[in-house]
Amino acid sequence: EVVPTCERYPVRRLPFARPAAGDVAFFERLMPGRVVTGQEEVKPFNVDWLKSVRGCSQLVLKPQTTAEVSQVLRYCHERNLAVNPQGGNTGLVGGSVPVFDEIILSTALMNQIISFDKVSGILVCQAGCVLERLNEYLEEQGFIMPLDLGAKGSCHIGGNVATNAGGLRLLRYGSLRGTVLGLEVVLADGSALDCLTSLRKDNTGYDLKQLFIGSEGTLGVITAVSILCPQKPKAVNLAFLGCQSFAKVLETFTTCRAMLGEILSAYEFMDEKCMELVERHLKLSSPVTDSPFYVLIETSGSNSTHDEEKLNNFLEQAMASGLVTDGTVATDEKKIKASHLRERITEALTHDGYVYKYDISLPVGKLYDLVTDMRARLGQSAKNVVGYGHLGDGNLHLNITAESYSHSLLDAIEPFVYEWTARCSGSISAEHGLGFKKKQFIQYSKPSEAVVLMQQFKAMLDPKGILNPYKTLPSAP
Amino acid sequence: EVVPTCERYPVRRLPFARPAAGDVAFFERLMPGRVVTGQEEVKPFNVDWLKSVRGCSQLVLKPQTTAEVSQVLRYCHERNLAVNPQGGNTGLVGGSVPVFDEIILSTALMNQIISFDKVSGILVCQAGCVLERLNEYLEEQGFIMPLDLGAKGSCHIGGNVATNAGGLRLLRYGSLRGTVLGLEVVLADGSALDCLTSLRKDNTGYDLKQLFIGSEGTLGVITAVSILCPQKPKAVNLAFLGCQSFAKVLETFTTCRAMLGEILSAYEFMDEKCMELVERHLKLSSPVTDSPFYVLIETSGSNSTHDEEKLNNFLEQAMASGLVTDGTVATDEKKIKASHLRERITEALTHDGYVYKYDISLPVGKLYDLVTDMRARLGQSAKNVVGYGHLGDGNLHLNITAESYSHSLLDAIEPFVYEWTARCSGSISAEHGLGFKKKQFIQYSKPSEAVVLMQQFKAMLDPKGILNPYKTLPSAP
Repeated sequence: EVVPTCERYPVRRLPFARPAAGDVAFFERLMPGRVVTGQEEVKPFNVDWLKSVRGCSQLVLKPQTTAEVSQVLRYCHERNLAVNPQGGNTGLVGGSVPVFDEIILSTALMNQIISFDKVSGILVCQAGCVLERLNEYLEEQGFIMPLDLGAKGSCHIGGNVATNAGGLRLLRYGSLRGTVLGLEVVLADGSALDCLTSLRKDNTGYDLKQLFIGSEGTLGVITAVSILCPQKPKAVNLAFLGCQSFAKVLETFTTCRAMLGEILSAYEFMDEKCMELVERHLKLSSPVTDSPFYVLIETSGSNSTHDEEKLNNFLEQAMASGLVTDGTVATDEKKIKASHLRERITEALTHDGYVYKYDISLPVGKLYDLVTDMRARLGQSAKNVVGYGHLGDGNLHLNITAESYSHSLLDAIEPFVYEWTARCSGSISAEHGLGFKKKQFIQYSKPSEAVVLMQQFKAMLDPKGILNPYKTLPSAP
Repeated sequence: EVVPTCERYPVRRLPFARPAAGDVAFFERLMPGRVVTGQEEVKPFNVDWLKSVRGCSQLVLKPQTTAEVSQVLRYCHERNLAVNPQGGNTGLVGGSVPVFDEIILSTALMNQIISFDKVSGILVCQAGCVLERLNEYLEEQGFIMPLDLGAKGSCHIGGNVATNAGGLRLLRYGSLRGTVLGLEVVLADGSALDCLTSLRKDNTGYDLKQLFIGSEGTLGVITAVSILCPQKPKAVNLAFLGCQSFAKVLETFTTCRAMLGEILSAYEFMDEKCMELVERHLKLSSPVTDSPFYVLIETSGSNSTHDEEKLNNFLEQAMASGLVTDGTVATDEKKIKASHLRERITEALTHDGYVYKYDISLPVGKLYDLVTDMRARLGQSAKNVVGYGHLGDGNLHLNITAESYSHSLLDAIEPFVYEWTARCSGSISAEHGLGFKKKQFIQYSKPSEAVVLMQQFKAMLDPKGILNPYKTLPSAP
């Protein structure tokens, strides 16, 4: 059983109104049959995917249209009711579930594709579309989504945008700040902001949509997204490699980037501890063994002959120069296996016990030092200390497992991990966001003037603070 | 002689203080020898590159450091003095020159490179670095700037970011919203905001720097930039093609995108009128002749053999299927010529008379219809109506020339051009910004709720309105 958030973390409920029978009746009239109440029915919406935090909301709303979201927020704003916007509930920092009794506003039924233009590759859809469904839809038309992540089977595109999700394709297609062309957002007071343009370029005034990308539902509720989708590559190849040291992982990256150039679409690494956990808990087997580090390289291109030639040349050189001790280029069947190994690390970790998760940006050269230092620091008090991540983006996923949650272990990890990161001018949240669990650590990555400015934006756009309270920003002093 | 802005356009000076002798003395103490006064010395800073608007500032400041910018703004804020931040003064919408007597804050002496990391490709530099100088510096180290534009020899990177410049490489490397990783900005009251991180991923709170990208100096003065630079491509190839209709230009684009895929780095088009002007005024000659439309394709890749094979295959198919009637793949010498043709259209236009410039985003299919409609509408009252632009980005540069400025011709063009664009959900400024000349037309591309929100941001960040007044946003009603 998950401990309620407010019992584990010192947090005080803000003086919002408490949802009452009259409110439920109002919502039932607004969207008959799409109001969820009752302990059991609401439970899956109260607990995060990691089962690490638990809210105690008793009310879930499932609007289908922007107009409904607008009406819900206008009502909640007037009544001073707090609202927790929720997409696929796959967030890793406790940002997607309520802390107390916030009304859950789920985008689950806002799952319509609005338009797709095959000439420009621009998709417009509602916020609740599941990432994997969108990708399947696009693949049929010769395109793909510009982002891909482990949670793709559940996560909503609106949640992806609200959290500025990164994932596996960022190295190639860039961040959502470049690929999201337009947003429709409902503000805290219920007014709709239509910035849902489908233009690659638009320099008319300030780019308001950027403020909502990565704001984790605290400034507005994203209801629709316009996004630029790349063509589906004609050839995708994978290579899975073993390296004898992290220095060689880095040198392999430099070589690979020079030799694969424009077709390199992912450069992921994992340490042997990750591999052990994936093998033990998920019974997967690695195509390459006995290496302290493993590297997964993906290429995506328009000409398979050219791509294979580039990849083979690179592998030959990497093997000849001793950068890589063992490696395999994936055929179609193995392809699935090798990428699954990487995608399912998060899942394997949850089978290992309680997981302390850190998602850190660092200068690539120092990326693994944090894992080594943490392992030495924790010694026997942790079960496993593992590191993996998107090396091409300077993004380390540091995970520490233990039999169960312990406050003393947490104290040994934090703030050490944040101080270490701040010393290297890194980010304490590369792609997961701050949500509920990391918000009080923002000052390790942002100067206080920036935090003050963020609080001013929040106060301006959501003066009553009803949108996803207790999240992202530290409470005003 | 350029007519003063305030004589041509109906605009009233806001009640800012007028710079006085005591102010000049203060600035002289702050930055001795870097304060410019005197009619003649200040003149080049008062007039825009197009010689279309003229301010009457009598004071130019040339700070070298962020601390100096900070002191200047703190002083101006206290004294209620208006400030016009200025980079290379290459803007096309009158955003970079004063309207009245605003103090010009030039970044010309803030031209230091702060750091460049060859592993990550991240450059950190002061705002006044000239784009072309940065590119030369990077090329020596095997990298390039992610943007390229005609004004590269003069424009400053700070100005590029402040105006969210697009240019020739956007198709390949994406917009500045993805490639700019960090900014240092001085706010209107002189406080410095340090968001100058060098991380590809950082999801800690709202992405404040985005608000300053494209804000045209109205929300803060950008003093330093951190930007992700791509590797210098090992092979760059150009193809210059002739097409018999705009429909074939479009079909060629679709074919080319499919066959060139990841190596396509630019797809530019120009009509025969553009070609005539370039030939007539600049004495350049085209490698391909007698076509109503010309297309310039650039590829950038890591393997010249592969790239040439892709390009030749594409050309063969485009010729065989009749999409393209004539074409040449550029050898090294011709390469320079063909790209110059495209880059120098703006210059050729200025030799043709007074130029009415429009920079429009449209769905690609409708891109050229606007030129055709405008030509029919204006008939003999215009000298030339030409269209060219970044077709790959849906960006049309529509230019109309006449012997001299005439109010009646302007009335025939505007608001027709904006109404036409709005009907197609296009943008009335794709990459040039709104500046002084387009600010009153923002409502053709943005809903009024968005404009109100922008005005709120402006009021929050610059309550006295001293930063680049009369620009970007329409005056509050």
